[in-house]
Amino acid sequence: MQRNHNFSKLSERYLFLETKRRAELYLEKHSCAKLISLSVGNTSEPLPQEIAKALSKAAEQLGTLSGYIGYGPEQGIPPLREAIAKMLYDHQGGYCVKGCDIFVSDGAKCDIGRLQLLFGSKVSAIIQNPGYPVYTDGSKLQGVDEIISVACIPENQFCPDWNGVKRGDLIYWCSPNNPTGAVSTHKQLRQLVDFAKKNRSIIIFDAAYAGYIKDKSLPRTIYEIEGAEEVALELNSFSKLAGFTGVRLGWTVVPSTLKYDDGSLVRDDWLRLMTTVFNGASNIAQLGALSILTEEGMQSISRIIDIYMNNAKLIKETLVQKGYEVYGGDNAPYLWVKLHQMSSWEAFDLFLEKAHLITTPGIGFGQCGEGFLRLSAFNHKSTNEEAVLRLKRSF
Amino acid sequence: MQRNHNFSKLSERYLFLETKRRAELYLEKHSCAKLISLSVGNTSEPLPQEIAKALSKAAEQLGTLSGYIGYGPEQGIPPLREAIAKMLYDHQGGYCVKGCDIFVSDGAKCDIGRLQLLFGSKVSAIIQNPGYPVYTDGSKLQGVDEIISVACIPENQFCPDWNGVKRGDLIYWCSPNNPTGAVSTHKQLRQLVDFAKKNRSIIIFDAAYAGYIKDKSLPRTIYEIEGAEEVALELNSFSKLAGFTGVRLGWTVVPSTLKYDDGSLVRDDWLRLMTTVFNGASNIAQLGALSILTEEGMQSISRIIDIYMNNAKLIKETLVQKGYEVYGGDNAPYLWVKLHQMSSWEAFDLFLEKAHLITTPGIGFGQCGEGFLRLSAFNHKSTNEEAVLRLKRSF
Repeated sequence: MQRNHNFSKLSERYLFLETKRRAELYLEKHSCAKLISLSVGNTSEPLPQEIAKALSKAAEQLGTLSGYIGYGPEQGIPPLREAIAKMLYDHQGGYCVKGCDIFVSDGAKCDIGRLQLLFGSKVSAIIQNPGYPVYTDGSKLQGVDEIISVACIPENQFCPDWNGVKRGDLIYWCSPNNPTGAVSTHKQLRQLVDFAKKNRSIIIFDAAYAGYIKDKSLPRTIYEIEGAEEVALELNSFSKLAGFTGVRLGWTVVPSTLKYDDGSLVRDDWLRLMTTVFNGASNIAQLGALSILTEEGMQSISRIIDIYMNNAKLIKETLVQKGYEVYGGDNAPYLWVKLHQMSSWEAFDLFLEKAHLITTPGIGFGQCGEGFLRLSAFNHKSTNEEAVLRLKRSF
Repeated sequence: MQRNHNFSKLSERYLFLETKRRAELYLEKHSCAKLISLSVGNTSEPLPQEIAKALSKAAEQLGTLSGYIGYGPEQGIPPLREAIAKMLYDHQGGYCVKGCDIFVSDGAKCDIGRLQLLFGSKVSAIIQNPGYPVYTDGSKLQGVDEIISVACIPENQFCPDWNGVKRGDLIYWCSPNNPTGAVSTHKQLRQLVDFAKKNRSIIIFDAAYAGYIKDKSLPRTIYEIEGAEEVALELNSFSKLAGFTGVRLGWTVVPSTLKYDDGSLVRDDWLRLMTTVFNGASNIAQLGALSILTEEGMQSISRIIDIYMNNAKLIKETLVQKGYEVYGGDNAPYLWVKLHQMSSWEAFDLFLEKAHLITTPGIGFGQCGEGFLRLSAFNHKSTNEEAVLRLKRSF
């Protein structure tokens, strides 16, 4: 049996396994170092009480005759799908997302993997550079025909001039962006949708950080853009929205207005795929998530988002005072720090050695990330304050 | 954007969506009918108290500062992997499965989907006929080069003469078998492993129903066979073992002795894939599952398995009395019923109309399943008794 040659196109390790490995190596040599991670976007605040209780109750009821549930509906339980539509897609204008458009899953990263199987290998994919590694790695694993990398850098306001971009079948677009923290404006998304319409492309819009948008003038979903429902599906997740990184729950919106060239519905194939190689998200997670999508639940998670966003603000202020250009952090939990004539991995080592901070080298997100570091704001307030102190002292 | 042509190779609906649709159509016309489903293998007994409580406690602790967990280790939490190895691979002889060989996931069906991405499309796959539809459908979705179907029927004791089988890169093998309920003997698995060794094939051994083997002389894992660790990975799941169908938790064993022709380790690529397009199984499910893998937990789930196996026994006795040839049901929760000169779908309709029972037509598992029905034993005792009564009355 021969190895799947697509694997040889990937770097040896997934980015965050590599940063972890390097941090561990450092610890072996400096066992007293108290490292703080500003690397992985991993939530740290406990779940709000009512949400933890709802999860707990959902688990407990599985021990009762009347409350036991085995396999649930493949697309997710209807009340959850309805609540997602009602509470998270209450925007004015554009397409009104309905419960039937929503496919509940165990998370956006996993859905990106399944999207590879949905669209297959005979496609070209436009991918932001820098970008979340899973878009590129997943596409390489599937062996897609072509990856068209588009630079999204400070000089172009993190958005290309679409007139100069080659057509692609798929366009991965992430806003608020991981890693740059940039949020696409209405105008930028309008251009994106127009480009997709002109080229009959499908946009895979990753809105996993939409909950971090404070500026109400910025779009929180691609469906705020008129006509997007004909060219875009949207990924989202409870991971960063509600601290469900470990609980695992996400969803994908696939409107029935999204069609292939032959007129067949993307949602029909997606349903076929989700019933074939997926078996529904955990019923405990689904039932528990209902408690997020209430007025009280939304207020609770908003308080936690405020903690993380305040973390971001403090790191940003500090680094700006130190003379760094810093992007993101205003409507996204990531800071994108331009380095002073230094490579990403050199800066990774510097931050590790001088401040015992684990960061993520920008180059790990693509060639256009070279010369940048990504810092995450997902620590406890006190841990973040300690990180900020170290930045102040060490640089 | 063109539709992925691999989808056109599939039937329109996943098998169990089709049986569900037909049952619903029947109900529309006969709204008073009280249908009982012997179709999907969906668990119905509540979780044992201590397991529901462990899940509930795991959920509750996410609401505390000290107990909160975000992303966990990609391969699953170490105590769970160790407990799986210790409690479920305690066989004599063969390869001793270790915690480091185990990759925890959200279920075997989902892992089968990811295995498609692991091995890619430039492979040939030997698949049992009849067989669990996901092997074939998943392979078709991935667009594999060739599917080699091997008949596993009563006439050959559900196992081919391997001398007559064409070489394949992959061999999907399920024991206890879904749908036939056949359990491969040591001798049969020895021949399977020898065939794979000779041909340098990789066996994907699906042991999801291993917990239902009562006869201690039958192998519960492929690793009881000497040398299997060099040619086989193994799928398993808590779904049927412990009623976790809705909780979602499974695992795959990938020993580091399993290698590609170039000497590289299958587990290295699997880890790369699992860190790229998967993000770990739910921490609630993982922590809760620890309570299954204790002496007390194993006794509790064994009592539930006894209920289902007694269901199987009752159905089998009844149908045998009615003159049917019935396979399976002794060491597996499925009964494979040979029909009297009738097609599978005709029998499906007959059972639905005469006894208000939903079954699964054998043809849905492949051409060699034509002329059979699969009945599942996963109902409550009382529901199963009612089903048995109807079988007695109606046939």
